[in-house]
Amino acid sequence: MKVCALAGGVGGAKLASGLQDVLPPGDLSVVVNTADDFDLWGLHICPDLDTVMYTLAGISNPETGWGIADESFETLNMLERYGENIWFKLGDRDIGTHVLRTHRMISGETLTEVTAGLAGALGVESVVLPMSDEPVSTVLETPEGRLEFQEYFVRRRQRDEVLGVELRGIEEARPAEGVLAAISGADTIVLCPSNPIVSIGPILALSGMMEALTSSSAPKVAVSPIVGGRALKGPADRMLASLGHEVSSTGVARIYTGLVDGMVVDLTDERERVGIEAIGMRVLATESVMRDAEDRRRLASETLEFGAGMVVH
Amino acid sequence: MKVCALAGGVGGAKLASGLQDVLPPGDLSVVVNTADDFDLWGLHICPDLDTVMYTLAGISNPETGWGIADESFETLNMLERYGENIWFKLGDRDIGTHVLRTHRMISGETLTEVTAGLAGALGVESVVLPMSDEPVSTVLETPEGRLEFQEYFVRRRQRDEVLGVELRGIEEARPAEGVLAAISGADTIVLCPSNPIVSIGPILALSGMMEALTSSSAPKVAVSPIVGGRALKGPADRMLASLGHEVSSTGVARIYTGLVDGMVVDLTDERERVGIEAIGMRVLATESVMRDAEDRRRLASETLEFGAGMVVH
Repeated sequence: MKVCALAGGVGGAKLASGLQDVLPPGDLSVVVNTADDFDLWGLHICPDLDTVMYTLAGISNPETGWGIADESFETLNMLERYGENIWFKLGDRDIGTHVLRTHRMISGETLTEVTAGLAGALGVESVVLPMSDEPVSTVLETPEGRLEFQEYFVRRRQRDEVLGVELRGIEEARPAEGVLAAISGADTIVLCPSNPIVSIGPILALSGMMEALTSSSAPKVAVSPIVGGRALKGPADRMLASLGHEVSSTGVARIYTGLVDGMVVDLTDERERVGIEAIGMRVLATESVMRDAEDRRRLASETLEFGAGMVVH
Repeated sequence: MKVCALAGGVGGAKLASGLQDVLPPGDLSVVVNTADDFDLWGLHICPDLDTVMYTLAGISNPETGWGIADESFETLNMLERYGENIWFKLGDRDIGTHVLRTHRMISGETLTEVTAGLAGALGVESVVLPMSDEPVSTVLETPEGRLEFQEYFVRRRQRDEVLGVELRGIEEARPAEGVLAAISGADTIVLCPSNPIVSIGPILALSGMMEALTSSSAPKVAVSPIVGGRALKGPADRMLASLGHEVSSTGVARIYTGLVDGMVVDLTDERERVGIEAIGMRVLATESVMRDAEDRRRLASETLEFGAGMVVH
C-alpha cells in the first residue's frame, strides 16, 4: 500500500507522521513544498522540508510544530552580538542541518540527495522528497509591496494582506525525479492539510505535476486545513479571503477541482458536505484536529480508508 | 606609543591581551597568522585569528586558551548525528563567527574587513589583522606523508614527527594592506611567544614582510615560546628538534637572526644570555610564563620597556 502525500509545514508534517505510523516502513513518500526555501547568512534553509523531516524523525518541537525539541540558540545569540538581525529563529541543532545541507549542495549533491542522506541519518523510515531540485520562490504582493515569503511569514508575522502570489522560477523548475515516481507508484495520494495557496499550490504548479497526478488512477484525497472557517495554523484563512476564495473546506475543494476525488473535513463542517459533493467530490467528515500522535494516526487511517473506498474494481 | 605584535594562537593571544591592557586603546595592532586557516563543512575557520580576537574581547575559554568560555556544542552534536566526523571541536557560539565570516567573505568582503567588523562588534579596542587576505596553507611533511596543519595539530594531536614545512600559496600571498601600515607605523614591534616555525614563520615569509620589518627603525623584541627546553603549549619544541633547531630560546633567537634586536627569555633560561648576546641580540630574562591577567600585563610592560631601552636617540 504505497502512499504519496503532498505537504507543506506543520499541518502537513503532522498528518504525514500519522501516515508513517500506520503504514509499513518505507510505504510513505512525502513530497514537500520548497517554494519558501531561502538563504540566510549563506545557509540554505528549507523550512517545510525540515519540519516534515524533524516530525517524521520524532525530534520536532511539540510546542511550535517546527524546529527541534529542546533547542538552544547560542549560535543565533552570537550572530546578534555581531550586530545581525535575528528575526528568523534558528536553533543550534537546526543550524547543524543547514550547515551540512549547504555544504553538500555546494559540493554537488542535489537537494533530493541531501535530504535523503539527512533523513536517513535521523532514522526516518519514509521517503522525504523536496518537490524540486531547482529553486522556486514564493513572493507575495501586499499593500506594502512585494515580500519574500519568509519576510511575510516570519519577520512581519503574516500581518500583510496578500493580494497576489508569484512563484518565481516555477516555469523552469521540474519535479524532482523521485517525485514523479512516487506519484505514479502510489496507491493513494493524499493532499495534507497545508495551505492550498502557498504550500500545496507550488507543488501542483510544477510543470508536469498536474499531468502526473491526473494520469494516476490512485484515489486522491485532500484533508482540509480549514476548520470552522479558520486555519488551524498559519494565515491560510486570511490568504484565501484576500485572494477571493471562500474561507471554508468548500473553498479549498474548489481550488482542488478536477484533481481531488474526496475531501476530509472536520465534523464542524459537516454542513458543507452537500456543497462539496456538488463539485463532484466525496466527503468524509471526521475529527480532523490533530492534538496528539493518536489523533494523527486515527486521521491518517480514516483518510486512507476513505481513499480505499473510492477505488473502482 | 604604537605597538605592532605578530602572533599565532594561544601564547601570542595572551601576550597581546597584556599589551592591550597596558597600552592606550587603539595603540596595539596584532598581525595574526592565517596559514592554519581551513574550511570545514563549508565554513571558513581561522583558528589563530579567532583565538586572538576572543582573547582580546575577554570571552576566550580560560581552560583551553582557544574557543569561547562556557561554550555548548549542540550544532556539532547534530553534525555527528548526521554521521559527520567531529574531530574539530566547534562550539555553538564559535560557529556563529564562522558562519558570519564565511557569508561576508562570499559576499565580497576581505578577511581583513570581516575581522575588523567582528572584532569591533565584540568591543575589541585593538586592531586585529590577518597577515594576508590571500590563502596560505601550512602542509607538514611527516613519516605518514603530507598532512594539512589542522589534520596534524588537532585530528592527530601532533603525534607525527615534522620533517618539513610547506607554506602553500606563500609566494602569491601579499601582506594585507593594514599589515604593512601597522609595521611601518609601530614604535615597537613584538614577536609574541608563538611557534617560530608555523605561527610566526608564515607571517615573516610573506613577500615584502622582511623588508617592511627590517626597514622599520622600531626596536623588535621577541618573547621566547621555549622555557626550560620545552614549549609551554603546542608542539614547538618537538618541531624545532625534528627540523634541526636547538630546542631553546637560543634556537629561537637564531631563527630570528638579522630581524630581532632583543629576546625576552624566562628566568629559567638566564644561562642562555651569553649565547644569545653572541648572536647580536640583547636579552631580558624575566618570569615569562603567563598564568593570569596580571602576568600578561607585567610581561607586556617589561617587554615594551625592554624595547624602549634599545631605541637609539
